[in-house]
Amino acid sequence: MKNNVNREIPDQILNDYNYEGFKTTDFGNPDIQRVAPKVTAQTGPSKIVESVKKVVAETLEDGMTISFHHHFREGDYVFNMVMREIIDAGYKNLTLAPSSLTNVMNDIVVEAIEKKTVTNITSSGIRGSLGDAVSHGALENPVIFRSHGNRARAIESGDIKIDVAFLGVPNADEMGNANGMNGDTAFGSLGYALIDAQYANKLVLLTDNLMPYPNTPASIKQTQVDYVVKVDEVGNPDKIGSGATRFTKDPKELQIAEMVNDVIVNSPYFKQGFSFQTGSGGAALAVTRFLRKAMIENQIKASFALGGITKPTVDLLNEGLIERIMDVQDFDKGAASSMKNSPNQQEIDASWYADPANKGAMVDKLDVAILSALEIDTNFNVNVMSGSDGVIRGAIGGHQDAATANLTIISAPLVRGRIATIVPEVTTVITPGESIDVVVTELGIAINPNRKDLIDSLSKVPGLPIFSIEELQQKAEKLVGAAKPLEFTDRVVALAEYRDGTLIDVIKQVKD
Amino acid sequence: MKNNVNREIPDQILNDYNYEGFKTTDFGNPDIQRVAPKVTAQTGPSKIVESVKKVVAETLEDGMTISFHHHFREGDYVFNMVMREIIDAGYKNLTLAPSSLTNVMNDIVVEAIEKKTVTNITSSGIRGSLGDAVSHGALENPVIFRSHGNRARAIESGDIKIDVAFLGVPNADEMGNANGMNGDTAFGSLGYALIDAQYANKLVLLTDNLMPYPNTPASIKQTQVDYVVKVDEVGNPDKIGSGATRFTKDPKELQIAEMVNDVIVNSPYFKQGFSFQTGSGGAALAVTRFLRKAMIENQIKASFALGGITKPTVDLLNEGLIERIMDVQDFDKGAASSMKNSPNQQEIDASWYADPANKGAMVDKLDVAILSALEIDTNFNVNVMSGSDGVIRGAIGGHQDAATANLTIISAPLVRGRIATIVPEVTTVITPGESIDVVVTELGIAINPNRKDLIDSLSKVPGLPIFSIEELQQKAEKLVGAAKPLEFTDRVVALAEYRDGTLIDVIKQVKD
Repeated sequence: MKNNVNREIPDQILNDYNYEGFKTTDFGNPDIQRVAPKVTAQTGPSKIVESVKKVVAETLEDGMTISFHHHFREGDYVFNMVMREIIDAGYKNLTLAPSSLTNVMNDIVVEAIEKKTVTNITSSGIRGSLGDAVSHGALENPVIFRSHGNRARAIESGDIKIDVAFLGVPNADEMGNANGMNGDTAFGSLGYALIDAQYANKLVLLTDNLMPYPNTPASIKQTQVDYVVKVDEVGNPDKIGSGATRFTKDPKELQIAEMVNDVIVNSPYFKQGFSFQTGSGGAALAVTRFLRKAMIENQIKASFALGGITKPTVDLLNEGLIERIMDVQDFDKGAASSMKNSPNQQEIDASWYADPANKGAMVDKLDVAILSALEIDTNFNVNVMSGSDGVIRGAIGGHQDAATANLTIISAPLVRGRIATIVPEVTTVITPGESIDVVVTELGIAINPNRKDLIDSLSKVPGLPIFSIEELQQKAEKLVGAAKPLEFTDRVVALAEYRDGTLIDVIKQVKD
Repeated sequence: MKNNVNREIPDQILNDYNYEGFKTTDFGNPDIQRVAPKVTAQTGPSKIVESVKKVVAETLEDGMTISFHHHFREGDYVFNMVMREIIDAGYKNLTLAPSSLTNVMNDIVVEAIEKKTVTNITSSGIRGSLGDAVSHGALENPVIFRSHGNRARAIESGDIKIDVAFLGVPNADEMGNANGMNGDTAFGSLGYALIDAQYANKLVLLTDNLMPYPNTPASIKQTQVDYVVKVDEVGNPDKIGSGATRFTKDPKELQIAEMVNDVIVNSPYFKQGFSFQTGSGGAALAVTRFLRKAMIENQIKASFALGGITKPTVDLLNEGLIERIMDVQDFDKGAASSMKNSPNQQEIDASWYADPANKGAMVDKLDVAILSALEIDTNFNVNVMSGSDGVIRGAIGGHQDAATANLTIISAPLVRGRIATIVPEVTTVITPGESIDVVVTELGIAINPNRKDLIDSLSKVPGLPIFSIEELQQKAEKLVGAAKPLEFTDRVVALAEYRDGTLIDVIKQVKD
């Protein structure tokens, strides 16, 4: 069948995996029977287990689903530590269901795939050697990609049933009370991991920093934890978050950032109490700087900033330009240490952040979202997953989720090197064009024709170059030429869900 | 059958309600499949409903289970407001499942019983006109009494299925983010209500204090809330918690408090990092004062204080004599306002506080608990539920839960007026003698013969009068004479669960 973003979804996939094709960004008001973990009661004085090896042996069986979080980012030691024991112990047919996979995890997952330790993966994304291996057909079953909000939905509804969660934390007591805020490897919000803590049947904490009991504030609570393992090091503090934030000096990024700011400031959403999510990356940080200036000049305060948080956003909070930061993840040390000290920086879990299947997520109240893209097509569909060679090298993250904002802006260069960003048809649809309002490139912007209100307001902005998306696509093609069509086999290697659990696209094995 | 505290439980009750009789205080390590709510998804911008009447009409059906919390205590307006609408709308056969019922709720519940609006009740306790009505057979089915920890267990396992929770809060935003800490009617910890928020199918918040969105810190989260109703007043601030704390000048209470302190200080548990729960009431507050002195003299710090919190305990935290307060409920304004400001005063829910059916509760790590009693018998069984006339006038509260402490002390006068506190057999067994270690009266103490270690350590304390429990009972009888046996009909009007969900006793209708 063809779904509502015109992607061909093989019927066998729909049947085998019991999927429906993507229809609409409107989630509606379904009744959803939540699932709950099976809990083994304990009343003893300590949950300390002497080694990872032992706790793996006590908890794991072939065929189970295991999970991890990615808050340690490129500084993560926990994933490799645990996977090493699992592979060496000879487990088979596991489903790997982390919140996402960072580059430091790639090689050992490839090994786990080769040894049939892991035969299923669901993740926000994959990259590097792992993306390459999956795109070339290494994994037995298709990877399932889910946004952060959709992962929460899937766990709450039972689509993902976590048997054992292995969660690294920068501090914990002997009973498992833990947070992400204290210790050498502090990363701030535990947002994505909180869902695992609530729903996993068995929860193993790993920490290098045992605290006196009771360890508070407790983002993860002893009522959720089965085992605590003391390890030498959970991560490399220098690689967990980026350090001091440098604003971009790249003229192209600055140009895009200024135009993004123009779009926001001249939209109907730039008013007292508005809300925004800017994300990370050079242009995004520059937008925050421009936005700050506009907020001061117009005496406008934001009610909240959302999402992965950076130091420049924290600075706005401290300046009184934002009332609250709603924090599911911290991208740098400044943001992480602010969460510890600022009562107005609230830790939120992935469900509260972005799950459409609950009683209201933060993204539902979001005015402005600035998102990136690998490709945007002339239907405004966005690809953040597969490269121009068809190989998987991205992650959904909160892309589909934040794109439900009132004003969703894609900020992207028109071309990257010899590759066009705006294309006739994206390789993989991750976020449907229906939820994209404005595309901003260094040459100018394109407004989704459905948004006549925005066309009206932005047309009046002096010096803001507005094109149709087709015009931008042609400008890109003129610069770098038309791309050669990619060649794929018929084998599906990955499934991309929309945030409601329907199938928005499939990714096929690349032809060598 | 006779259960393990020698109470006769009618077989019909065991069969009709699918109960087992109480066996042991040891919960073991059962696997428990938790339940989860059925959630109606919503993504709209506001949950405000214009009236209680309307929200009742939208949510309630005959036969449903409804819940409330009792954190507003004797200042609660919410319970009466909601029950008035429910009774007037003519609903029938509801199960009332609040965390507890305070005196201001009595009369309207009696009315609801008379009108068959309410035909089942489960609560921590009942008192006053309601206790009287139930004891005289007014309610169609037996009331089920559950401790705070047991209520959490029952909700988590599905023994209590809350269809609609009506929770009053001193602040909330339009999406339902709320806490107990801010506003004129602030009461501090929302501990008992947090379980309702997590497990109820439908959650209605009532507040007189609508805050800008997003309202943080959010103890109750928008992801849990279906409706928000703005009402004129949720409570009377002057009656929510007791005001300034006065230490008792009653010489008998002071005598008991000093002896309780002697028991603690001379026990093996009074050491660096010990933990305690003192509760409220004149003697308990006095104990805290004596304990403070002993801690300073012996340079001992406590790792945590637990339970319902009072200002004197907060003072110990501020003095650095306690590392953490683990706070499920605040008994006075001082404790409530401290929760707002002290990062070391952690809000905990009822499950974390005291549920044996999770992965570890605070009470499992408790060294010293000081509890009260209406009656104690020569098997150390404690009654906190029925008066000497057989009429129900009490609440389990956290009694059974905290009694699992390493050192559980019952502090009680030997006699109250012409009524003995220490008796041959308690009217109703609520907490089994197995979990009681020492009984302290103004005349002296009795130590549970199972605790030879305590008999050893406390025998060496100069001037501490130690008796057998039988000797104390005889002293009481000598003072006030033997009580006339109570007369009951055969009809069971209330069931008292032990914290594991087994039946520890039944209460029968009093004979007029």
